[in-house]
Amino acid sequence: MSVHDDSAGSQRGYIIPIGGAEERDGDPSILKRFVEICGGERAHIAIIPTASRMRDTGARYQRTFEGLGVKRATVLPYEQRRDCRREDWLETLEAADGVFLTGGNQLRLSTTLGGTVVARALRRRNREGQHIAGTSAGAAIMSEHMIAFGDEGSTPRANSVTLAPGLGLTERLIVDQHFRQRDRLGRLLTALAYNPKAIGVGLDEDTAAFFGGNVIEAHGSGALTIVDPEDVEYTSMDSSHRDDPVCIVGLRVHVLTEGATFDVVSRIARPPQPATTGR
Amino acid sequence: MSVHDDSAGSQRGYIIPIGGAEERDGDPSILKRFVEICGGERAHIAIIPTASRMRDTGARYQRTFEGLGVKRATVLPYEQRRDCRREDWLETLEAADGVFLTGGNQLRLSTTLGGTVVARALRRRNREGQHIAGTSAGAAIMSEHMIAFGDEGSTPRANSVTLAPGLGLTERLIVDQHFRQRDRLGRLLTALAYNPKAIGVGLDEDTAAFFGGNVIEAHGSGALTIVDPEDVEYTSMDSSHRDDPVCIVGLRVHVLTEGATFDVVSRIARPPQPATTGR
Repeated sequence: MSVHDDSAGSQRGYIIPIGGAEERDGDPSILKRFVEICGGERAHIAIIPTASRMRDTGARYQRTFEGLGVKRATVLPYEQRRDCRREDWLETLEAADGVFLTGGNQLRLSTTLGGTVVARALRRRNREGQHIAGTSAGAAIMSEHMIAFGDEGSTPRANSVTLAPGLGLTERLIVDQHFRQRDRLGRLLTALAYNPKAIGVGLDEDTAAFFGGNVIEAHGSGALTIVDPEDVEYTSMDSSHRDDPVCIVGLRVHVLTEGATFDVVSRIARPPQPATTGR
Repeated sequence: MSVHDDSAGSQRGYIIPIGGAEERDGDPSILKRFVEICGGERAHIAIIPTASRMRDTGARYQRTFEGLGVKRATVLPYEQRRDCRREDWLETLEAADGVFLTGGNQLRLSTTLGGTVVARALRRRNREGQHIAGTSAGAAIMSEHMIAFGDEGSTPRANSVTLAPGLGLTERLIVDQHFRQRDRLGRLLTALAYNPKAIGVGLDEDTAAFFGGNVIEAHGSGALTIVDPEDVEYTSMDSSHRDDPVCIVGLRVHVLTEGATFDVVSRIARPPQPATTGR
């Protein structure tokens, strides 16, 4: 229906928000698929551990990606805004086939990278074909409108969510993570009630939304909750007081599991396709 | 420096946020200039009074614009989301040379127009050359990130501002209005501290930012405060608790009065040029 400015054509790289706590040992199926998309054994992955306060987060992902057989996995430990001017890191970032943003605090990402040449490079390179995955905080930062923090509970309440500008890889989505585990439907609905223009994507842990072209595909052990406000007839957000429940009429919701898809342009959801077998 | 996706070329219409309480009788210099840009006596202005709860807001602006000699001023009183599907109003909106968004509550605008064909038409028509002015709430709604509400005071404090998605005519600016009158520097700085990527524009009452091409020009009886976070070295927003003051290092601030300009690409501010006189 609407064709946003950020509609990108087939050339844009995948945007892959992950709900946090993705499997990294046993069967790391989300990270494996990310690696495949990036070129498998030819892939060069850049890891940005900025969201995390733990020193070894980057190195741990480096080992995971190396274990998955990539050609190279490089940690770019941006800690200060001035780090964003390091030419050598920028070259590595530009050359990578895929970029992985770790979990932690999304405000560490937005305050450290926001408005810098690194943020601009990520936007541009993604438009040109670089794939960008992020887990938890790394998922939240991807869209133009980022949920910075908020309250738990499944009823939307005025003021239960704080939005902040994110990386802006897409304007189409607002992403929330640890979705079922932390009971976050209410805050996602609140975010949409302010302005029913983006599509809400709630990601369970160990679950990813592979967003390529116009299609989002669910992957992982949990579910992906799509909240489509296109036909919303009414929200009471403009007249709600702090902590009031917010009235919203006309949402469409889809809960997608492994292999199910949602087209952000046609707004059509499809269940998983049965595997095609020989006759 | 950065060239955003929303850079538009010379063809884009003006975006004209006004700080509220603009002069409408005596010398309505801001509205007069808006009318001139729209074609003067040939201009057709569409008025959207959605933000206001007062019945006569649209009609009052209609009389003001008629008094300024426009060819036609039409009120489009969108009240419900379903109104956005009215074909006749949409045709009027599409055909207008300029659109004026009145004051009131910006969440009335975002909840009523957000995600509808009206919002998309405004974005598209502005890119094609339609000029869009808005006062107070009508100014707040224009950018991609809108200040929905917040606290007063000049120190930025964590959680002192609530952002919501706006119309998205530009991603480059975050606008706040009634700026000096309501002591809103703190909340504007808070909004920038989340992610120092947009440029903050604080508008005093009876003061407008005429934003055409890459240049913002101040017009009116007050000042326009530009807060440029491009060189911000540090913000503590990621580690601040609710109501904590937020540390921000490296902001550049310009206070522009009538005729002074700021280029959003080169980030250069220029004082008012002396009128060129014959020798």
